[in-house]
Order: sequence, then C-alpha cells, then structure tokens
Amino acid sequence: MEDRTYTADAEPGTTATVAGWVHEIRDLGGIAFLIVRDKSGRIQVKLEKDEMDEELVETGLEASRESVVRVVGDVKEEPRAPTGVEVVPTEIEVVAEAETQLPLDPSGKVDAELPTRLDNRTLDLRREEAKAVFEIRAEVLRAVREAFRDFAATEINTPKIVATGTEGGTELFPITYFGEEAFMNQSPQLFKQLMVGSGLERVFEIGPIFRAEEHNTPRHLNEATSIDFESAFFDHTEAMDVCEAVVKAAYEAVAENCERELEALGLEEEFEVPDGEFPRLTYEEAIERINATGELDEQLVWGDDLPTEGEHALGQDVGEHYFITDWPSEIKPFYIKDHDDDETLSTGFDMMHPRMELVSGGQREHRYDRLIEGFEQQGLPAHEFEYYTKMFKYGMPPHAGWGLGGERLVMTMLGLGNIREAVLFPRDRQRLSP
Amino acid sequence: MEDRTYTADAEPGTTATVAGWVHEIRDLGGIAFLIVRDKSGRIQVKLEKDEMDEELVETGLEASRESVVRVVGDVKEEPRAPTGVEVVPTEIEVVAEAETQLPLDPSGKVDAELPTRLDNRTLDLRREEAKAVFEIRAEVLRAVREAFRDFAATEINTPKIVATGTEGGTELFPITYFGEEAFMNQSPQLFKQLMVGSGLERVFEIGPIFRAEEHNTPRHLNEATSIDFESAFFDHTEAMDVCEAVVKAAYEAVAENCERELEALGLEEEFEVPDGEFPRLTYEEAIERINATGELDEQLVWGDDLPTEGEHALGQDVGEHYFITDWPSEIKPFYIKDHDDDETLSTGFDMMHPRMELVSGGQREHRYDRLIEGFEQQGLPAHEFEYYTKMFKYGMPPHAGWGLGGERLVMTMLGLGNIREAVLFPRDRQRLSP
Repeated sequence: MEDRTYTADAEPGTTATVAGWVHEIRDLGGIAFLIVRDKSGRIQVKLEKDEMDEELVETGLEASRESVVRVVGDVKEEPRAPTGVEVVPTEIEVVAEAETQLPLDPSGKVDAELPTRLDNRTLDLRREEAKAVFEIRAEVLRAVREAFRDFAATEINTPKIVATGTEGGTELFPITYFGEEAFMNQSPQLFKQLMVGSGLERVFEIGPIFRAEEHNTPRHLNEATSIDFESAFFDHTEAMDVCEAVVKAAYEAVAENCERELEALGLEEEFEVPDGEFPRLTYEEAIERINATGELDEQLVWGDDLPTEGEHALGQDVGEHYFITDWPSEIKPFYIKDHDDDETLSTGFDMMHPRMELVSGGQREHRYDRLIEGFEQQGLPAHEFEYYTKMFKYGMPPHAGWGLGGERLVMTMLGLGNIREAVLFPRDRQRLSP
Repeated sequence: MEDRTYTADAEPGTTATVAGWVHEIRDLGGIAFLIVRDKSGRIQVKLEKDEMDEELVETGLEASRESVVRVVGDVKEEPRAPTGVEVVPTEIEVVAEAETQLPLDPSGKVDAELPTRLDNRTLDLRREEAKAVFEIRAEVLRAVREAFRDFAATEINTPKIVATGTEGGTELFPITYFGEEAFMNQSPQLFKQLMVGSGLERVFEIGPIFRAEEHNTPRHLNEATSIDFESAFFDHTEAMDVCEAVVKAAYEAVAENCERELEALGLEEEFEVPDGEFPRLTYEEAIERINATGELDEQLVWGDDLPTEGEHALGQDVGEHYFITDWPSEIKPFYIKDHDDDETLSTGFDMMHPRMELVSGGQREHRYDRLIEGFEQQGLPAHEFEYYTKMFKYGMPPHAGWGLGGERLVMTMLGLGNIREAVLFPRDRQRLSP
C-alpha cells in the first residue's frame, strides 16, 4: 500500500494520505468537516461544497460513520481545527463502508453496557477510553518483563495442557487429549519450581491460566493472565522485594509512557506511582485490624481465611499496597514452606491492593520428605505428582516466588469497576464467545 | 537469605558466599577440588586435607554430585584453576542432598536420550547446552517483542478457550466448559483480525496454540508457541517486510547477547545473521524449481500442496530463508484475500527456512460479502462465526498479517534435530507429563 501518514503526524505544508474511520461529519451548510480517526488521533478534512469537485464532496458527505476512508490532500494550518491542522482533500475514497446501524457508538456519545461492549470489542476499542486500557495493559506487560530481566530472570513457557492440576482435581477444565483425560493448567506453579532447580535458577512466565471456579463477580475470570516469578536461593522476604519492585516498575512505566492514555481515562491528575515501601502486616495484625474496624458481623479468629469484606475493610484502613505475611500453615497450599521455628506459621504471603488481593507467594518447601508429608496432609495423591516430587531428590535449592494476576493489576491501577474491562475477550460462566 | 555471589562474579581478594550444585569432586590425594556450578558458571573450591578443618573437608568430599551446597570462603587468584580463581572455604554446608543415582548426568559426560531428558528437565537444564537453548529462546522472544514495538504494534492477549475453531471443527481439543462444549484455540487468527478493526490497528501476540493433529514428527507439537502479527492498512508485501525484519531482529539479538550460549552449543563460529533480502518466489516458481531438482517421484502440478520432500529439495536449492507467494486460492484458508486481478491467485505467503516452513501469512479478506462467500466455498458454517463476521459490516480496513512458529524459529536458528528440544515440557501424542 502507498505510504500513509498517521493523522497525528500530518505536517502543515505537505501533501499527505491519511486513512482511518469516519468519526463524525459536521455539516455547517456551505462548508462541512469530515473527522477522520486513526490509531494516533483525529484530523479534520474540510469540504467546501461550492468550491471543490462535486463528487469528492459528495463522497465525503455521504460516508457513513465508522466507514474506513482514505483521504489524500494538502495539510494546512488551521487554528480553529481541533488539532490546529486540517486536510484540504483532492481525493476521498470509501475503502470499507459501515452499516448505518451500529451496535455501539464508538464516538462515546452514547454509553453502552458492558455486555454490549464485550460483544463488539472491535467497535468498543475504537473509543479512546477502551483503547487506552489495552495500550496501558501492553505497557504494563512490557515493563514487568523488563523488570524481571533486570533481576536476571529468564522467561519460560510451561504447558497449558497437563495431566494433573497444581492443587489436585478441583476447579479444573477437563480436556479430551487423544482419548486421555487431561486438564487446562490452573497455574504454572509446579513447572516454574522445576525450573528453579535447573540451571536457569530464576524464571518468570506471563501466560494464561484456567480456573473452573463457579464464581460470578466483578473480580474473577475463568481464563486469566498470570504473571509468575520464582527464584532459587530466595526466601519469602526476597520474593516480596522483587514483587514490590515489579509492581512499582509497572506503575512507573505507565506514568512515563502512557500520558495520552491516562488522559483519555481522565486519570492524568489522579494517577500515582506507589512510593515508599509497601507495609508488611502479619496475618495476626491483619485480623486484629480488621476486627478493630467493626465492619464484620463476626470477629475473625486465628485460622480464618480473610473474607472479602474483611479485605475491603483492611484495604481502606491501610490505604495503599501492602503485604500480609505469616499466614497459618493450615490455610496455605502444600508447596508453601512453614517457618523453621514455628510449624504452624507459613512463609506464604499475599500482596494486596486496597481493593483486592493481587499476589500470592511464599518460600517453597524444597525438602523432599516434607513435601511428601505436605501432600498427605492435604489429602492429595503424591504419586500423581511424581514428575514433580522426584526432582526434589536430586538437589532442589531453597526457593521462593509468587503469582500476580495481570488483569487485577491493570484493573486496580486504572480503577476499573469490572475485571472484564481489562481483558479483550473475557471468559466467564456466561461468556464463551466472542 | 544472605548475600550470595555468582561464581562468575567472585573477585579475588574478597570473602564470598557462593551457592550452587556439586558439579564434580576431583580428589588428588592430599588436595581435592569441589567444583560448584551455578547459573553463571563454575568455581573451584580447594580442600586441603591436612591443613583445613577436618569436618569441613569431610563435608566437601562427601557431598554427592548435584547436591546443593553453600560455600563461604576467601576468593584467591589461582592460574591453574579453570576460571583463574578458587575459593578457600571456611564453611561448607550441604543445603539439599542429591541421591547418588541420577536419572541423567548433568555434567554431560554420559549422553541421555531425548525422552529421558524430557522426563527430567530439571536435571537436563543443568547441562550448559540444554540451558543455552532456553536462554536463547527467551532472548528471541524479547527481541521479537521489541521489534514489534518498533513497528508500533500493541501486544494483545486473546482467549485460549473458544466456542469455535479458526478453521472449523477439525483438529481441535474439546473442553467441557461449565457443561458446554468448547475448544482450545488453534490460532489467534480471528481475534487478531477483530483487533486490527479496532483503534489498535496493529497488534501482536505471543502465546500458546493447541492442535489436535495426530502427526508424530520431529517438527510438530500439539501445544506450540505462536508469534502472531496483524496490521490494518497493510497488504501482504508489507506484512512480509515486517516478517523478515522480525526474524532478522531475533537473529541479531542472539548474535549480540548470547555469546556464551552460542559457545555452549558449539555455534560461535557457525551462527550467522541472515543478510540481504529473503528471496520471494512465487508458488509457480517454487514448484518448477522443485520439479527441476528431480528429488520427487512425481512432478508437482499447479494446485498441489508442497510435500515435505518438496520443501526440503527447494530449501536445499535456495539455501537461505525465502518466501513463497501467490499460492493457488483453493489451497489457502477462507480468510486469505485473493489477488484483485486474478481470483485463482491468493495473497497468501509462507516464509521458509531451508529446513521447513516457519510462517504462514497473507492479506486478509476484509469485504463482508466476499468473506461470507469464502466460508461457503470452504464448507464452513458462517453463522457459527457471526461474532467475527459481523464486525466486517462496521468498517473493517484492509489488513494483513502472519503467524510464526516460535519453536520452529528456535529449532532452525540453532540447528536442533527435534522441535521438542526447543520446548521445556513438550506435548505430543505420547507425552502429556511432565
């Protein structure tokens, strides 16, 4: 195709070809403006009815909204145009005509409900706000990978089709794999642990995870993006240090590189990079503080998992990202190591945004005998995980790591109301298409 | 954990803590050397039997191979040591003891068959060669993403659980999704096309794809990593330009940043960044050249797909990366656009390494009516793809793109014999675990 100029790059004094969507036509009588929108922004195309070629003007005026057009013309300075420039066209071509009835209005003048938006993501992402979320999401992933590499971690890809789930047979989607039963993996946990015992030592993965949980909330997905980190020779506190640095790196990159997107979301003033260290509360402190808020009907006691309302109350109380450490061993999975000096206390940690949990991590149990005991205590069939457990007999270093929900990171960063706004094509109990 | 020094960074004149695996113990009588291996390399730890603490020496000498050890000591220059330095230990701790019978030998002295290696990836990736492949794989993915961003493409993630396959119901793994039938996606094709019609315009994705093909060859996987690109306002030649640039960027990054890994693989001399433009052969030229080699029993005629032996013969003949363009429309999928001046010719292209196909791409059919015709011609139920087709009614720009097999790129780049060597945990008909 011929060279095309982004609307944002159209320089006065040049002849340019711009291509994009018909955002709007403003007909003022003798003069009309065709607003063409592309990835970079919008530009005004001037149609002078009595002075320009009749067919040219007609093509411009009759183009339906959201049609794809190609305009060749001279770019002129025009202080009254929204971007200070306009195109005086010599050629207008409708490249792809849009039906006049649109399922949603990309100009954003008419609000659409979330299900309509998700059914029509192509049109939805022509809106600046929706597009901004996904440009930011891409920048978050870029920045996170760069931060991992700064920590000398190697990117890995682990299988999504597995014979056994990470935490047993619950909440897995079953697959038929050449006549055998298999599952879609709910977490790269066991595989990333196998890799820290290899010569790679420190690894990360960003990939899909699949959870057949029947919840239907604004913060759960059945297919999500997990950001995973694991390092040999790390304890849980070092894993927390990396976690904090990675999350901060994501915020910093967005602050630095996504000015236009933050503006589209109306966040240019509000957006704040977390500063200072994330407070580290023990589980015991956490339940005390939740109880002290008086928000729960029943007081929490040692061993309780934190209910959603408890997390909310504590999040409001703390008011910034924070860790909860030293959980009761009994409510953390078998692969989390207990403290050496107190077996009832685990090295597991969660990292929380005031609105919700973002990260779950901990030091892992690297001792073969203790690992097998852990399987037994949680009623899991250790023999089904032999591919994993046997590697712990051949020199498995102490290690620690965590998993961060990619969509939750974006959702909390941008204050989105529903996690589905942070996924192009979300999967939930009701939604399997598009 | 205390600060640990990578063996490669241990500076003479300092006291250091190194941690890693027992690579080897060389007992020379009065003196013995414990070789400790970590991610960065290896270091020699000197054990002087009569002069050092007896227990310390014993701990070192009795450590089984591949046990994890932690050594504190003074780093000294020692010209006779393999790295020019050695550690004179004051402390040796066996952190995780390895069983003496290992399923494979990470020192590389005893070769292991591929199935044994795949069953024991943790140990396998303690070998320099195996580790090098995956360090290079990570660098390839990094470089490819950077190249995409240089082309102003936005990273996207599309769903892996889908209601319908890209090319109909064949070769899909079925899933039970909350009682409904669903599939694991075989390609992000349709979703990335939906996104070029959005305000993103140009997108890329690196993610898993799933193909239930029953082949069992050294170059097929049932779960693979697809590197996908798609851009609005591009034709197939522009898509080919980006394809060529991205593949070259991957080679350049490996040449520049993976010296140690190339050396481990014995490729430091051999490794070449493709220079010059990749030749672009038409399908017609390709079958003529294959026929001219005389390697096939039967001459190919127009409309034949290229058999594997034909690809090999042509690859040997061309001797570098090349494109095959202008395929017969009838053997390319419905979403590939035909040439405007000849409907029997498609804009589809393949990009080939001399050994095998790496990329498949083309300009896409963006006209709604023609797209629906294409479904009908290929006997696919258009109504099942309405989530996709309907967006073509609302201003879908001309667009083009391609998909590149990530493992094939690494395999051909490094001359690996089997594609499974480029995946940590490959999935094939026989292999579902680990």
